[in-house]
Amino acid sequence: MKVIVALGGNALLRRGEPMTSANQRENVKRAAASIAKLVASGHQVTVTHGNGPQIGLLALQSAAYGVDSAFPLDLLGAETEGMIGYLIEQELENALGQGHQVATLLTQVEVDARDPAFNNPTKPVGPVYEETEARKLARERGWVVKADGAKFRRVVPSPKPVHIPDTAIIKLLLDHDVTVICAGGGGIPVVRRDDGSLVGVEAVIDKDAASSLLASDIETDALLMLTDVDRVYLNWDTPEQEGLGKVSPGELRQHEFAAGSMQPKVDAACRFVMQTGGVAGIGRLEDASAILDGRAGTRVSGS
Amino acid sequence: MKVIVALGGNALLRRGEPMTSANQRENVKRAAASIAKLVASGHQVTVTHGNGPQIGLLALQSAAYGVDSAFPLDLLGAETEGMIGYLIEQELENALGQGHQVATLLTQVEVDARDPAFNNPTKPVGPVYEETEARKLARERGWVVKADGAKFRRVVPSPKPVHIPDTAIIKLLLDHDVTVICAGGGGIPVVRRDDGSLVGVEAVIDKDAASSLLASDIETDALLMLTDVDRVYLNWDTPEQEGLGKVSPGELRQHEFAAGSMQPKVDAACRFVMQTGGVAGIGRLEDASAILDGRAGTRVSGS
Repeated sequence: MKVIVALGGNALLRRGEPMTSANQRENVKRAAASIAKLVASGHQVTVTHGNGPQIGLLALQSAAYGVDSAFPLDLLGAETEGMIGYLIEQELENALGQGHQVATLLTQVEVDARDPAFNNPTKPVGPVYEETEARKLARERGWVVKADGAKFRRVVPSPKPVHIPDTAIIKLLLDHDVTVICAGGGGIPVVRRDDGSLVGVEAVIDKDAASSLLASDIETDALLMLTDVDRVYLNWDTPEQEGLGKVSPGELRQHEFAAGSMQPKVDAACRFVMQTGGVAGIGRLEDASAILDGRAGTRVSGS
Repeated sequence: MKVIVALGGNALLRRGEPMTSANQRENVKRAAASIAKLVASGHQVTVTHGNGPQIGLLALQSAAYGVDSAFPLDLLGAETEGMIGYLIEQELENALGQGHQVATLLTQVEVDARDPAFNNPTKPVGPVYEETEARKLARERGWVVKADGAKFRRVVPSPKPVHIPDTAIIKLLLDHDVTVICAGGGGIPVVRRDDGSLVGVEAVIDKDAASSLLASDIETDALLMLTDVDRVYLNWDTPEQEGLGKVSPGELRQHEFAAGSMQPKVDAACRFVMQTGGVAGIGRLEDASAILDGRAGTRVSGS
């Protein structure tokens, strides 16, 4: 079976953990063990991952020596594909042993220059700030900041992914039994100009949306979105909280979920299942195989 | 013909230029135009690149919020493979047009944990400092610093590359007419432990040495090392300065060149030509085709 495993940025760095190399590696190890089981079961696996916490930190680091020298978000996104992709590849190779090949591919993802998201930034990146500090940073660095609970956070445009130029290369590698890591952080955001050339843009693509597009393009049978909660919940954090096991896209679409975290996963799952007839799953990092088999997490299929 | 083009870190950022995204992109564009000509002539091209200036800057940025949170050199090397690889891929795709595929592969390169280089750091990374400032940084951050002309610079271990695990994947892509960008910054330095698993190490591999190893492994016909000087010179910067055109490894080995810049290129050229019987070239970014044809640069062949 062809399976895409999408790892949440928060799954790679648990909420509140400092972003040291050691902490990231520990979390990546847990993910790698879970993914290695899928590969060992004979599935053709593609791994994608988020980069929300990481690109936020690199943006701060990049601006540490002056706003003028700060790198744009396409370059920072490319840096996170390198850093996170390397950690996943190495831990996955260690979990799989030397008989199996893993390739990490830098991946540009095209978005539409006229996407309304460019005028309405919604994707939170980096740390939370008190309101005064957030307003000051917004003035100094040209950021847009928005409330995130009682605190404030930088937000950036998150346009829809429309095309993945490397699709044929990803298919070629999968066809030769290579496990592929790609579209990290939702892909490096680029637009195609009228003359056909590509150029990077200041945005961060939602990694679940990019994974769903990739899943259709490479004709995947299953899309697993792994995060730090064990399944999708109705009425999350209320006395009526209710976990969902097996559901259809039709049932899921009758409800609303947390914007910026669970809603994009639910949207990507519904889109993938309705377009392809495949299976989507949402659950914990450790449960990849169990979610696919319907023994854990939320499993979305049918119509 | 199978050709490897190795781009110098200094070629991607001219000496003294601030490392903005725009400056790097301008230099990468010049390289891309030169490489596109090789591809258009029907050659199977693999591109490698240096990362000396870039990894130095990212190391500074990474330590900006405290020494404890600074990333190790393997992670920073992976970030530079992402950033520089992305710029080269995009500009190369733009120079080639949409009919041709380019893939950028994150590349680990194995070194020997017992390599004496770990006890004698020699590879300069990052900016130059006055001696007092350099000594202070060395104390604060655990760096080794060495004189570089009248100034001082951080130096890191530069062990010999011994194995490139992704060789089969690179060959697969080349066999399917994909232009491959890989082994950036000499590759992400890793060692293989006794149990067979990989782990990153604090080092920067010389990109010319890694390119020469890759050139042998994938059975390349030619290895071109492009930089910001037009050829190899004897008695550089003296009244007896003499540029070399066509030479043999035997002739080259009778001379000494600048350590850390021209000597590694000369060593890599000699090693490649003597091991494989192929052709090596050294010259300017713009001259890739002309160097291969013997119309520019220094062309090393024979015995």
